[in-house]
Amino acid sequence: MPLHLPMNDPVIGRQVVQRRGGLKAEVDDLLVVEEPLEIRLGDTAIAVIMRTPGDDDDLVRGFALTEGIALDPDEIGQIENLGEGRYRLSFSEGVTVNAEQFRRNLYATSSCGVCGKASIDAVRIAARTATPGPIVSEAVILRLPDSLATAQPSFDLTGGIHGAAAFTADGKLIAAAEDIGRHNSVDKVIGAIAGAGWPVIYPILFVSGRVSFEIVQKAAVAGFAIVAGVSAMSSLAADLAEELGITALGFVRDGGFNVYTGADRIAMH
Amino acid sequence: MPLHLPMNDPVIGRQVVQRRGGLKAEVDDLLVVEEPLEIRLGDTAIAVIMRTPGDDDDLVRGFALTEGIALDPDEIGQIENLGEGRYRLSFSEGVTVNAEQFRRNLYATSSCGVCGKASIDAVRIAARTATPGPIVSEAVILRLPDSLATAQPSFDLTGGIHGAAAFTADGKLIAAAEDIGRHNSVDKVIGAIAGAGWPVIYPILFVSGRVSFEIVQKAAVAGFAIVAGVSAMSSLAADLAEELGITALGFVRDGGFNVYTGADRIAMH
Repeated sequence: MPLHLPMNDPVIGRQVVQRRGGLKAEVDDLLVVEEPLEIRLGDTAIAVIMRTPGDDDDLVRGFALTEGIALDPDEIGQIENLGEGRYRLSFSEGVTVNAEQFRRNLYATSSCGVCGKASIDAVRIAARTATPGPIVSEAVILRLPDSLATAQPSFDLTGGIHGAAAFTADGKLIAAAEDIGRHNSVDKVIGAIAGAGWPVIYPILFVSGRVSFEIVQKAAVAGFAIVAGVSAMSSLAADLAEELGITALGFVRDGGFNVYTGADRIAMH
Repeated sequence: MPLHLPMNDPVIGRQVVQRRGGLKAEVDDLLVVEEPLEIRLGDTAIAVIMRTPGDDDDLVRGFALTEGIALDPDEIGQIENLGEGRYRLSFSEGVTVNAEQFRRNLYATSSCGVCGKASIDAVRIAARTATPGPIVSEAVILRLPDSLATAQPSFDLTGGIHGAAAFTADGKLIAAAEDIGRHNSVDKVIGAIAGAGWPVIYPILFVSGRVSFEIVQKAAVAGFAIVAGVSAMSSLAADLAEELGITALGFVRDGGFNVYTGADRIAMH
């Protein structure tokens, strides 16, 4: 099995027995690729993330920022590919980080951002309170699912991959990413756009699935003002968004949406 | 926000602005509850899991078993509720466990089981190779989604909760659980049935969503022979199942399914 053989294709072919409509057939199916990525500080492995290969640099950069390993994109020096899914993160001159601190207190995750906090008190990392504005037209919100779908080629192929994207206030898609892990797709998007300004200068983060606490947490660290998803919102996600002044939308689909908090940012006619 | 105020209801009411079909209304909506649970060994916090409250004892027991903290249900002594989402796990007499070892090497997770492994080499924990058999009729497989749906009341209410269940070879539902985290629902089921025999004596684990590496890993540690899900299978999940001789099924819905490996356990006409 390819545990140590990362590939760069997000999908992989596999022969499966398909039983449907009274027929049984051996067919070539496409599966979403899932492989571990290890992040090292120096020679210390601090995290393993189960991810879909592709945009690995963005993932490492975004993860480092949203998990508080680096406080600003300028602190990140080099992201070195050591092969076999291993990446070494180094910092800019003058930035000192204690790897052991993260190895002990930040242990990482495939599909969540809380994992690795060793205690409840450590669950929250430096999240920003959103600044007022911008006001976004509901027409922009209603177009988000179609815009993301256009940028998410693998979902149609596998039915098993999550997407995330950053948008401007007038609905222009700036960056999008796919991953088997919901949080990874968010980290990839944040890693891709972090260089353009920090906190990020684009107000809308949109995800293809549910909005959980960790999605809002990562969005808050990055500075998004509006977090929206195709599916349900968790209680704690809505609570955290409300506390931080972030607008939270769920069930953005089929021409409608729910606003859980911060409705003043959405212009509805 | 209720970060330190765990509740025992899996759903919570919240007023939301609903915009749909040209109408805008303030409605009372139900959200799935998400709250942190902390596991301690002695006074050392070794893991925080973002979970939906309910069946917390089963979750702690199942997590301890599938993550290799305890090797057998008999090793687990007491699971003590310390309040505010904190639980202390103690071991049976004669069993000694080094908390620091887990704090450093096993850091835990809301929605994944790999998180917390500090290096790629630590990704796999003691998984069992499945023993041959049993043979299960495809009629049993095709009934799994309806059986699980019957046992999953909160999904209809919130649209945002995962389910898992254990079944006998002839399709009798033995235990089911719901959680915002896919892996938590599996751990809750395993924790609930572990006492009846270990490895577990029921052959089928069924989940309401995707089947990822960690789902197969947890199923393998527990001893399930057949792992099936309503949605897609990841590449690494299929690889691990094949390596361990576990039957893996995906897209079990609408009267059909895909078999990714181990088709000999499914009797198809």
